Amino acid sequence: MILNKTTSRIKEPKITLVGAGPGDPELISLKGMKAIGNADVVLYDAQVNGALLNYASEKAIKIYVGGKSDNEPFSQDAVNKLMIDYALNYGHVVRLKSGDPFVFAGGFEEVDFAESYSIETEIIPGISSAIGVPGLHKIPMTYSNLSESFWVLAGTNQKGDLSSDLYVAAKSNATVVVLMGIEKIQEIAAIFQAEGKNRLPVAVIENGSSQQETIKIGVVDTIAELISDHKIESPALLIFGDVVSLHPSFFRIRDFYQLIDQE
Amino acid sequence: MILNKTTSRIKEPKITLVGAGPGDPELISLKGMKAIGNADVVLYDAQVNGALLNYASEKAIKIYVGGKSDNEPFSQDAVNKLMIDYALNYGHVVRLKSGDPFVFAGGFEEVDFAESYSIETEIIPGISSAIGVPGLHKIPMTYSNLSESFWVLAGTNQKGDLSSDLYVAAKSNATVVVLMGIEKIQEIAAIFQAEGKNRLPVAVIENGSSQQETIKIGVVDTIAELISDHKIESPALLIFGDVVSLHPSFFRIRDFYQLIDQE
Ligand SMILES: C[S@@+](CC[C@H](N)C(=O)[O-])C[C@H]1O[C@@H](n2cnc3c(N)ncnc32)[C@H](O)[C@@H]1O
Ligand SMILES: C[S@@+](CC[C@H](N)C(=O)[O-])C[C@H]1O[C@@H](n2cnc3c(N)ncnc32)[C@H](O)[C@@H]1O
Repeated sequence: MILNKTTSRIKEPKITLVGAGPGDPELISLKGMKAIGNADVVLYDAQVNGALLNYASEKAIKIYVGGKSDNEPFSQDAVNKLMIDYALNYGHVVRLKSGDPFVFAGGFEEVDFAESYSIETEIIPGISSAIGVPGLHKIPMTYSNLSESFWVLAGTNQKGDLSSDLYVAAKSNATVVVLMGIEKIQEIAAIFQAEGKNRLPVAVIENGSSQQETIKIGVVDTIAELISDHKIESPALLIFGDVVSLHPSFFRIRDFYQLIDQE
Repeated sequence: MILNKTTSRIKEPKITLVGAGPGDPELISLKGMKAIGNADVVLYDAQVNGALLNYASEKAIKIYVGGKSDNEPFSQDAVNKLMIDYALNYGHVVRLKSGDPFVFAGGFEEVDFAESYSIETEIIPGISSAIGVPGLHKIPMTYSNLSESFWVLAGTNQKGDLSSDLYVAAKSNATVVVLMGIEKIQEIAAIFQAEGKNRLPVAVIENGSSQQETIKIGVVDTIAELISDHKIESPALLIFGDVVSLHPSFFRIRDFYQLIDQE
């Protein structure tokens, strides 16, 4: 036992950022799973599926650093400090983040902080919810003449304001994926309405890839109401674009608008 | 043996599109790996790591449907037909695609074709090279005040023309990731130059996540030369944006331009 402790003390500190994927625990990579197995400490976020902790060794310390909601996480500062503390004292820290660590997840802040302590870092990418969750519903990012590119944004920037990129995105022909946007759905829909895109197809997907998953399909003019009627909550993402019309639920909506137009 | 054959004949046809990730065979998801293990037939692309075929059963039929290069793959038509043929005759076909099946990979075309034959389809997303490859080099998609969003495009559209979305992307503040763009690097750089973004940081990464990986960092004005000097070839992707300045190799470039500016 004493030997064990000594060994663990001289272990090189290391921090590995691992993308856990969108929720389904089988959507983590093999490499991510192995890193968890090698961890002395796992720091995990709110949206990370707890089942992934089963890949960690029994001796590994597991620490929850998510808040009660997206809006109330541990501060980045607090997580940074914990991470360094554990790496210096225990060795290999795996920082397990939902989706991909570099998609709106403060991943670079953590790498930067660790490197300022000369602690080695490694990145193991993950399946981002931005691409993977629409894909699970057979909504492609691009398709034939419907869309040639996709643009991923957050509803609000770090200051809590609407991201100014949204105004350009609404003008573009890209498929527009918005994370953390449902609280500001009225404002976001208004940006598309200002471009005359009232009938652009929109999907909202809540808790993608989990048992509690919900998907609702509408158009720019109806999406805010759909979200409030169905009490859609975080985590949820929005997809604006003609590719959403490929989803079977959209056929009904198309028929509805065709009827209106004939009147 | 006869029993075995009969069993395989009455198997329900099914097609699963699996994202293999950017190249490193450990970057596939657990779910993707299990699907390969369940496959009666695996149809795999040029950029898929052959090591992944080891997860398939010995009896599974493995068919290469990539061309010699990105520019000369099997036609989508030919792949579609093969896929249906094998599903009807053998049961479970896994269609293994590099990165994510819905990021510039013809995934929806295949789903659509299969459904026209009433064959069940399933999607298992993968780590797209667009996000995962920059991430492995610690280049985040967004960061603090450097970038609030990211836009993923292909250099050329299905007709072989430059994608018109590139002109809007070059005006935007998004991190711009361009797949299949290195053959048109002069034209693409010119689009950013027309916006006065001559010194915008750019990275090119060839064969990301593999042993043969190469990364080169420059700015809009130097990227075409870097690519030709270092004989960068497909598969390679480009990242345009201030987030590229976070890469350690950029520090030298910044110093260089600071010297020039002082003269
Ligand atoms: C702080 S961001 C982190 C994103 C993550 N790094 C990724 O790549 O998916 C959290 C937001 O991602 C989106 N999100 C994450 N997981 C999701 C899921 N399973 N279903 C729907 N949206 C999800 C939601 O918009 C959520 O508010
Ligand atoms: C036909 S697209 C398929 C993209 C794939 N579905 C994905 O999500 O990564 C192929 C292009 O993706 C990019 N790509 C794929 N794998 C890559 C890698 N390992 N390193 C750099 N670029 C890669 C290159 O631009 C390549 O020409």
